[in-house]
Amino acid sequence: MKIPQDRLNRYIGLKRDFAEEEYINLQPIQRGGILTEEARRAILEFGDGYSTCDWCPPKTARLDMITDPPIQQFYQDLAEFLGMDIARVVTRCREAKFIAFRMLGRPGDYVVLDSTAHYSSYLAADLAELKVKEVPNGGAPEFRLNLDAYAEKIEEVKRETGKLPAALLLTHVDYLYGNLNEAKVVGKIAKDYGVPLILNCAYTAGVMPVDGREVGADIITSSGHKSWAASAPTGILALEKSLEEKLLARAKIEGDLTKRKFGQKELGMLGCTVMGAPLITLMASFPEVVRRVERWGEEVEKVRYLVTELEKIEGITQRGMKPKMHTLTHMETDGFYKVSETHKRKGYFLYDELRARKIVGIQPGLTKHFKFNTYGLTWEQVKYVKDAFFEIAGKYGMKIS
Amino acid sequence: MKIPQDRLNRYIGLKRDFAEEEYINLQPIQRGGILTEEARRAILEFGDGYSTCDWCPPKTARLDMITDPPIQQFYQDLAEFLGMDIARVVTRCREAKFIAFRMLGRPGDYVVLDSTAHYSSYLAADLAELKVKEVPNGGAPEFRLNLDAYAEKIEEVKRETGKLPAALLLTHVDYLYGNLNEAKVVGKIAKDYGVPLILNCAYTAGVMPVDGREVGADIITSSGHKSWAASAPTGILALEKSLEEKLLARAKIEGDLTKRKFGQKELGMLGCTVMGAPLITLMASFPEVVRRVERWGEEVEKVRYLVTELEKIEGITQRGMKPKMHTLTHMETDGFYKVSETHKRKGYFLYDELRARKIVGIQPGLTKHFKFNTYGLTWEQVKYVKDAFFEIAGKYGMKIS
Repeated sequence: MKIPQDRLNRYIGLKRDFAEEEYINLQPIQRGGILTEEARRAILEFGDGYSTCDWCPPKTARLDMITDPPIQQFYQDLAEFLGMDIARVVTRCREAKFIAFRMLGRPGDYVVLDSTAHYSSYLAADLAELKVKEVPNGGAPEFRLNLDAYAEKIEEVKRETGKLPAALLLTHVDYLYGNLNEAKVVGKIAKDYGVPLILNCAYTAGVMPVDGREVGADIITSSGHKSWAASAPTGILALEKSLEEKLLARAKIEGDLTKRKFGQKELGMLGCTVMGAPLITLMASFPEVVRRVERWGEEVEKVRYLVTELEKIEGITQRGMKPKMHTLTHMETDGFYKVSETHKRKGYFLYDELRARKIVGIQPGLTKHFKFNTYGLTWEQVKYVKDAFFEIAGKYGMKIS
Repeated sequence: MKIPQDRLNRYIGLKRDFAEEEYINLQPIQRGGILTEEARRAILEFGDGYSTCDWCPPKTARLDMITDPPIQQFYQDLAEFLGMDIARVVTRCREAKFIAFRMLGRPGDYVVLDSTAHYSSYLAADLAELKVKEVPNGGAPEFRLNLDAYAEKIEEVKRETGKLPAALLLTHVDYLYGNLNEAKVVGKIAKDYGVPLILNCAYTAGVMPVDGREVGADIITSSGHKSWAASAPTGILALEKSLEEKLLARAKIEGDLTKRKFGQKELGMLGCTVMGAPLITLMASFPEVVRRVERWGEEVEKVRYLVTELEKIEGITQRGMKPKMHTLTHMETDGFYKVSETHKRKGYFLYDELRARKIVGIQPGLTKHFKFNTYGLTWEQVKYVKDAFFEIAGKYGMKIS
C-alpha cells in the first residue's frame, strides 16, 4: 500500500529529544547502557543487517561459531567474566529468562521468585506457561526481601504439586528500590534443594562485579542495553556446564516428508539470535566494562553522597535499603509534591526546573516519588545535580537542613 | 573474573573483513539489509541502549505507545504498507513466527508448512511444541511447491487428530532457490478451511510490493535486517484485526502473594521488544523502502539479465523456477567445480578470483553450486559481475557460448 509522503516525512531526520552530550541524564534504566566510544565506532562499521555474518561457518551456520568478528571468543570471555561456563547473547534479558524457564520447566510447573522482580520475569514465566510463587518483602520503607523464605516457598510448591519448582529466580538488584540482594543465601538454598537458581543481573552484571560461581548461581541473565554499554536489544544468558544439555538443547523437530532435521541449531535461541549492532556494541564495550566494574566502589560513594545531601531537603527521603549499595535510587519526595499542588504546571514543574538546568531523566509529571541513577556520572556532575535540587527546593521555599 | 588484556584487545577496533563501499557484495541474505544514509544517521543518534524510550508513557510503559520518536505512528504505517491492520516490530522474523505459533496453537497441534521453508520456521514450531506437516515440492530442477497440497495436508491433519492445524505457513520466497510462491492460492485454501495463514515474507516485504489483504494472509512475518535496510535483529509481525485478541493477548499471570498483574503487557512480546538501533534504522529507512518496492520490476530485469548471461558459461545453470521472479538466485556450477578439482586452492579458487575483482558474498569454498543476490546493484555493477564471471571462466578454459 502507498503511504502519503507527509506521513513518511516523520521518519526523516529522527532525533532524540535532547543531545546526550549537553545534558545530565539521570534516567534510572539508561545510565549503564550509554555507548562507549569504541561501541560508537563499531555500530557504524557493523550497522548493516547481516554484517557480523560475513564469515559464518557454512556447515554449522551458527552465530556462536563465528570467529571474525570474534563472536565465539567473546562468548567465552563473557562466560568467564561472569564466573560461569557458557554464555550466549540473546535478544533481551527477558528472553534469557524465558529460555531458561521454557527449557527447565513444563507447563504448570512453578518458579519461585522474589516479589520485587521485574514484570518481565513474570511474563517470561507466563509465556513458558509456568506459575509463580513469590518470596515476600518487608514492605516500606526498606522493601527488604526475606531471602530465607525461598526455602519455605520450595516446600510449599512440594506440598501442593508433589514436586520441586522448575527454578528459583532472584533479582540481584531490583528495578524499584535498587536493593542489592545477597545472592549467596539463595544460592545455598538452591543447592540444598537441587533446584537451579537464575540470578537476574539486569542491573548488576556489567556495572558491578558479579561472580556466579561464588554466589551459587546456576544461570545468570543480564541486559546489555541496561548495564553493558550496548545498544538495544541485547540480553545475556550465562550458565553452568551442567545445564548445557537442558538449556542449549538442540532442535529435535523433523520434517514429516523431507526428513529435514536441524540438530546443529539451539532450540531456545531459535538458531541465531542477536547479530548486528547490539551484539557488536556489547563486544566493543567489553574491555571498558571489564575495567569499569572495578570502579564500582566509587560509584556507590557518589550515590551515597547524593542521597545524604538530598535528604537534607525537607520532605525528601530515600526508599529501599540503607545505606545504598547500588546507584539506582528511589526517593520519596513529599516536599516536591506539596509544591506541585499549587503550581500551574502541576507535577511537571520539577521536570521543567531540572530541564532548564540541563538535567533530564526524572520521569515527567512525577513528584511524590521518583527514581534516578547516578551510574557513571562524574563527581562534578553529581555535585551539580545536588546543587540543582537545592536551588529548586530553595526557590519554592522548601527548608534545607 | 579478570580477563587478560591481550584477550580484551581483540574487541578494540572491530572491523569488517571488507569495506562495503569498495566491494560488490552478492551475499544472498545481505543485499536487502544494507542501511540507507538516513538509517546510518539514526543509528548513531539512537545508539544508546534505551534512547528510544525517553518518552515512554508512564502508565502503559509500552514501546508501541511511544510517539517521540514516532514508534506508534510507525507501527500504523507499517501495517498499512503491508496491507494489514496491526503491526509489531519484534526481535527477529523467527520470533514473529514463534509468537504466532505459540499464541495460535497448543502443544501437539500441527502447522502445515512448505517443504522449502527456512529452518527457523521449523524451530519456531518446535519451540512452541507444535508438529509440522510439509507440503511437497517437485524437486530438481525447479523445486516448485505443490500449493494445492495445503488442502490435502489439512485433511490429513484432520484425519489424524480430529481437528484442524493451528496454522498454515507459506514461505513467500524461499531461501534456497528464490522461488516466488503464489500466496493467493494458499490464501484461498486458508479461508476455505478457516485456518490462519502466516505468510513468511522474510525475502519479499521491504524489497517488493506485498499486500497481505490481497493475497489472503492473516499474518505476515518479515525480517528487517534481510529486507528492510535495517540493522539486526529486527522482525516484523503484522496481522489482521480479527487475530488481535489471540496474537496480542495480554499477560494473565498474577503474583500469588502481591497480586501483581501486568494486564497492559502483551504476552507474546514479553512486554517490550526491539528498542534502539534495529527499530530506529527500520523507521529511518522506511521512506526509502516504500519507494524502492516500486522499483522491483527493474530489480527482476537485472537478475534475469545476469542469469541469462551466466548460463552462457559452460556447465552453469540456474536452479529453481524460471524465469526469475526474485533476485535471490541459486546456480548450479559444475563448470567451476571441475576447475576446482585440479586447482591448488580447491573450491576456494572462485572466492579468490572474485575477491581479487572486488566481488564478495559468494560462500568461500563452494563451487558445485552457490547463491547470490543482485538486489539493489546498479546495472553497471551487474554487468561488472557478469564480466568478472566471464573473465574467470575464460581464464580456466570454460567455454562461453
